[in-house]
Amino acid sequence: MNKPLRVGVAGLGTVGGGVLQLLNRHGALIAHRCGREIRVTAVSARHKGRDRGIALDGIAWHDDAMALASDANVDVVVELIGGADGIAAELVEAALNAGKSVVTGNKALIARHGPRLAALAEKKAVALRFEAAVAGGIPVVKALSEGLAGNSLSRIYGILNGTCNYILTEMEYTGRAFADVLAEAQQLGYAEADPSFDVDGIDTAHKLAILASVAFGTPLDFESIFIEGIRQVTPLDIEFAAELGYRIKLIGIATHGEKGLLQRVHPCLVAADKAIAAVNGVFNAVVAEGDFVGQTVYQGRGAGAGPTASAVAADLIDIAQGHIHAVLSPPVAGAGKTRNLAMDGYEGRYYVRLSVDDQPGVIAEIAAALRDEAVSMEELLQRPNGSGHPVSFVMTTHAVAEAKMMRALARIARLPFIAEKPEVIRIETF
Amino acid sequence: MNKPLRVGVAGLGTVGGGVLQLLNRHGALIAHRCGREIRVTAVSARHKGRDRGIALDGIAWHDDAMALASDANVDVVVELIGGADGIAAELVEAALNAGKSVVTGNKALIARHGPRLAALAEKKAVALRFEAAVAGGIPVVKALSEGLAGNSLSRIYGILNGTCNYILTEMEYTGRAFADVLAEAQQLGYAEADPSFDVDGIDTAHKLAILASVAFGTPLDFESIFIEGIRQVTPLDIEFAAELGYRIKLIGIATHGEKGLLQRVHPCLVAADKAIAAVNGVFNAVVAEGDFVGQTVYQGRGAGAGPTASAVAADLIDIAQGHIHAVLSPPVAGAGKTRNLAMDGYEGRYYVRLSVDDQPGVIAEIAAALRDEAVSMEELLQRPNGSGHPVSFVMTTHAVAEAKMMRALARIARLPFIAEKPEVIRIETF
Repeated sequence: MNKPLRVGVAGLGTVGGGVLQLLNRHGALIAHRCGREIRVTAVSARHKGRDRGIALDGIAWHDDAMALASDANVDVVVELIGGADGIAAELVEAALNAGKSVVTGNKALIARHGPRLAALAEKKAVALRFEAAVAGGIPVVKALSEGLAGNSLSRIYGILNGTCNYILTEMEYTGRAFADVLAEAQQLGYAEADPSFDVDGIDTAHKLAILASVAFGTPLDFESIFIEGIRQVTPLDIEFAAELGYRIKLIGIATHGEKGLLQRVHPCLVAADKAIAAVNGVFNAVVAEGDFVGQTVYQGRGAGAGPTASAVAADLIDIAQGHIHAVLSPPVAGAGKTRNLAMDGYEGRYYVRLSVDDQPGVIAEIAAALRDEAVSMEELLQRPNGSGHPVSFVMTTHAVAEAKMMRALARIARLPFIAEKPEVIRIETF
Repeated sequence: MNKPLRVGVAGLGTVGGGVLQLLNRHGALIAHRCGREIRVTAVSARHKGRDRGIALDGIAWHDDAMALASDANVDVVVELIGGADGIAAELVEAALNAGKSVVTGNKALIARHGPRLAALAEKKAVALRFEAAVAGGIPVVKALSEGLAGNSLSRIYGILNGTCNYILTEMEYTGRAFADVLAEAQQLGYAEADPSFDVDGIDTAHKLAILASVAFGTPLDFESIFIEGIRQVTPLDIEFAAELGYRIKLIGIATHGEKGLLQRVHPCLVAADKAIAAVNGVFNAVVAEGDFVGQTVYQGRGAGAGPTASAVAADLIDIAQGHIHAVLSPPVAGAGKTRNLAMDGYEGRYYVRLSVDDQPGVIAEIAAALRDEAVSMEELLQRPNGSGHPVSFVMTTHAVAEAKMMRALARIARLPFIAEKPEVIRIETF
């Protein structure tokens, strides 16, 4: 049997603890599977004294994570500190510079600095792997970069944030408002004290940027992603969507073709009979479409110690077997150029909910605003709301350019009988 | 750039043609992704003259597929002839013996001779890859052997035969009988002239045997699989199942634990809200459950030129990058021992449909037969069928040992008022 692969783990929180537990419990199995032992030789965390329920005997302790990059007994650094910058970024860069491979679960880091770090890894002929950064334990980075490598992929989309999916699922099942469910999710530990990273769609966008680059071989570009979160989604919208045969999900969608690359994150109405509509709670799902394979779907838990440890272990096992090929594929040095498209160029269907004072001529004025932008209505629902209260007026449209839709909506919003800001959600036809 | 990987393709039917088309269309992309060209240097098929719409200029033609094994210009043989024995088996063995890697889509061959061939590949330090043998283009062999390699897997199950899933889906949507839908499927080319391989569950069992060995690292064992096909499923069963909240699917299920390995293929009632219940038509789905990752689901097209070519290409790309590790993992030489369990030891819930002559005392006698084997009924449905006709009496049971259930059913079948052979379908609680 070959020499052990020596691993240094930075960060011993929930995920780091899970990684140590997995490597400990399945040490013999993994050694058998990959022909050599994977051994944790060094760790670093903020508080040495804390009882983590894991034996650290015989493992070197570094108070400073940066020491892992220069530890001669470490072949691979596993970075589980988190954050796009600061110590995590410094450690990964130093480790790669020192000729060590790196495994990370840090999506913010890869979304922000992936290309630079991948180029460094290539130059040093070491691996930079990040299966754990996207969709938890679902081996989707591997599926895209290896399993579907014979395809030209045209579209990839998914439910990539368990917090948002949990909140939307709960809102649907209980009829409660966003703020209520968010507060509960915070108490349960499913949402952070500052939830904006999740509920404003930034986390989903980080993951989408990574997936798109892996899938299409285009330069990773977080900055050009159109991002809308879920704060404005109401139980009323979820109810109307259900009436129309849809569920509301926060989805990250990237399409790539001759015109260029369009990346967007926003709530979507998806037909209730589609696979992705059935993905509930903290689960994640990714759909990849290729020219030969057709549509493939990957589902599983999107976060947590176990799934994340599973993904980190898979990356380590690959590295132990000498698989160090670039995952931001094709190799960053020759990454395909593409044009990043803006949402103005987007065309699609829309769900619009208006809150209107019930008076004669209302529909005529709305219809005129739509007609002047060539927006064609598909379905209409109007529901009375008790005398004196505004009425909900809901419509879906046929496919129309985003720019036209937004101009029509701006005009409608200024109409005197409009009681609230119009709510608009894109309808996605997968 | 490294030397090209030289590929010899045996079999130029639909799938072989798809492989050539893919490698031709995406040659530059693949070369860029894996750092070297993948070049078809030789082919073999039965009829040289046939127009396949593929240019074969500059590619060596062999009338005898066996010549690929000794062609000095071939590094990897792609076997797409099919069949567990005969020329396919001879070619794969000869190629491995000649030190060439092999990629095959032949599930019968791997299910019957996989361990022997994998041992030979190990001895010769070449690759034997068969992603295309299971679930078409879904990279599920890769997911199990690499993506989830850090887990101990406890259960794997799936819809693995598109023909059966198409027939069951059509029966459900149209209410037509098995024989009707089968005849139509044969006309459409979705089912073979001799459909027994598909509809009797053998093809599903071949794939299950492969998946179980890859997932659990247990010796591949096709012979011990319990197999029941879908011929006896009626539109009436599908209707009753729907009334009870289930859909009927042909599923291959393998569970592995301390007691041993149980592999079974049979129609199942699955709760309508489960992901696998929503997999329709020619689609396949595989669910894998691991101790760290939890449940993961993989879906896509299970057959066809495009998906199969996608899987073959992925294997070739891995080989081109030097990834030749054993896929029947852990390496066959040290494959884990296990005890193969029989269905007598199985315990589960059952759906039973009886056709009974409506007369006093019927239910009392059925209930007594069940009580004497400690079978506990959960739900009951009885539907009149017009005066003078037998009545449908449907029940579901709580979990009970298969042996007890079968004894109770044998006794019930002999009761004088039973008009037809009782129909029994297992209920799977995923």
